[in-house]
Amino acid sequence: METACLVNGEVYAYVPAGDRGLAYGDGLFETLVVERGRPRFWQGHMDRLQRGCSVLHIAMPPQELLLREVLTVAAGRSACVVKIILTRGAAGRGYAPPRDGQPTRFVAAYELPADLGDAQRRGVRGRVCDLRLALQPALGGIKHLNRLEQVLAAMEMRAHPGLEGILLNQEGFVVGAISANLFLVCGDTLITPRMDRSGVRGVTRNLILRDFKARTELRRVTPDMLEEADELFLCNAVRGVMPLVEVDGHEWPAGPVTRELQSWFERRAGGA
Amino acid sequence: METACLVNGEVYAYVPAGDRGLAYGDGLFETLVVERGRPRFWQGHMDRLQRGCSVLHIAMPPQELLLREVLTVAAGRSACVVKIILTRGAAGRGYAPPRDGQPTRFVAAYELPADLGDAQRRGVRGRVCDLRLALQPALGGIKHLNRLEQVLAAMEMRAHPGLEGILLNQEGFVVGAISANLFLVCGDTLITPRMDRSGVRGVTRNLILRDFKARTELRRVTPDMLEEADELFLCNAVRGVMPLVEVDGHEWPAGPVTRELQSWFERRAGGA
Repeated sequence: METACLVNGEVYAYVPAGDRGLAYGDGLFETLVVERGRPRFWQGHMDRLQRGCSVLHIAMPPQELLLREVLTVAAGRSACVVKIILTRGAAGRGYAPPRDGQPTRFVAAYELPADLGDAQRRGVRGRVCDLRLALQPALGGIKHLNRLEQVLAAMEMRAHPGLEGILLNQEGFVVGAISANLFLVCGDTLITPRMDRSGVRGVTRNLILRDFKARTELRRVTPDMLEEADELFLCNAVRGVMPLVEVDGHEWPAGPVTRELQSWFERRAGGA
Repeated sequence: METACLVNGEVYAYVPAGDRGLAYGDGLFETLVVERGRPRFWQGHMDRLQRGCSVLHIAMPPQELLLREVLTVAAGRSACVVKIILTRGAAGRGYAPPRDGQPTRFVAAYELPADLGDAQRRGVRGRVCDLRLALQPALGGIKHLNRLEQVLAAMEMRAHPGLEGILLNQEGFVVGAISANLFLVCGDTLITPRMDRSGVRGVTRNLILRDFKARTELRRVTPDMLEEADELFLCNAVRGVMPLVEVDGHEWPAGPVTRELQSWFERRAGGA
């Protein structure tokens, strides 16, 4: 099926070459699943986009407008991935944004990834990337368009097909996978790395932190802590909850707490 | 005068919304001056672009092709700024680049900034930004499209109109101005910060390092070292060499070594 695209609400697949999203990565994005005309975790995606807009001082478009555009590109598909890119808009040269700029919205539908069931049932295997994420508290946690680190990490992982790249930051703390958040299961407790200096606060991660508040802890996570965990799992709004069953030779079971979180995700994704 | 744009050689001002330059800032740029049909420091810009392509594994277009496009957009102007954006090109979703991708070239002409003479004669004043640059050795020195830090710093400097934002990195070392490199003059010696972990290796900086090899030193520069310098100057391929005569209340003269470098720049820019 062809990809349906809207730029600022018009059926169009191009953005002005002077857009600051292209010039500087000056913008944000969201990637969500739409099933039978219902965007999954809509409010979670909108809350994160709003937070990114506040950090970058970009005017957040009305949520109803974005919702209408998401439903338009998803129309006629039983399930798809929709990506929203929101930039500061077109401008001339120079880092300082114009005060009267108009944000650019790009909304497009893509096929769902095919191999989700297997990753969820049997788990995924990982490898710690050589690339270390920089620390930037001013951008911590938001899903901005400056993603060269993730591109370099994904290129590094080409030499290890089928493995998930696990990212540490410059200080050696674990951040997560290249495009998924990481949780450690220790007894009944769910530990996940802080996202205040690098990494993205995933929508699924945010929901887990809310729904399992009493059982979750935000920590600086060392590689040693992974080895001591009972189970590990990755999560992401498109791929759901996936057991992480091996990293660089260390193994963990796809255990009962991860299975519990998978059931929770299925209920949540279904609208519960 | 209207801005002339070429996208992949066609007179066009739009790029595919699926371009990885927009999605991830997955690309590079160059900003150069073209005077009377002659691009200033052409080889320096091409060498830096080539280096960035090597780091990001993007195929460098033939230099003759880029030259032709630069001259096309500059045609009919006595002097202008030309910006080249080179991205990894259009692709589907996902950080891993396609193996068969075709880079996108965007080449556009802009007016020269108006106030250059004054900044060069009387110097500029600066202020240390609150924003600190992250350390990322994998991207150090190249002029990539992930520029949100510079955007945030430029937004911060709106509260201080007319001042240059001076950037430190997360460890507190001085990197340079938001869009210019910094040199310290200490006696006869020219000291400039290393660009191996953050910042851009400017084309003018590279030329100074080559032409004044015996007198230059690459250092980790602390704010204290600025205070002990005899003179400071900023440099950039468009704005030339500018005395930096004040930072947060500390003052330096627009001294003889800076004036020497300005004469050098004028000769170099004129083709010597």
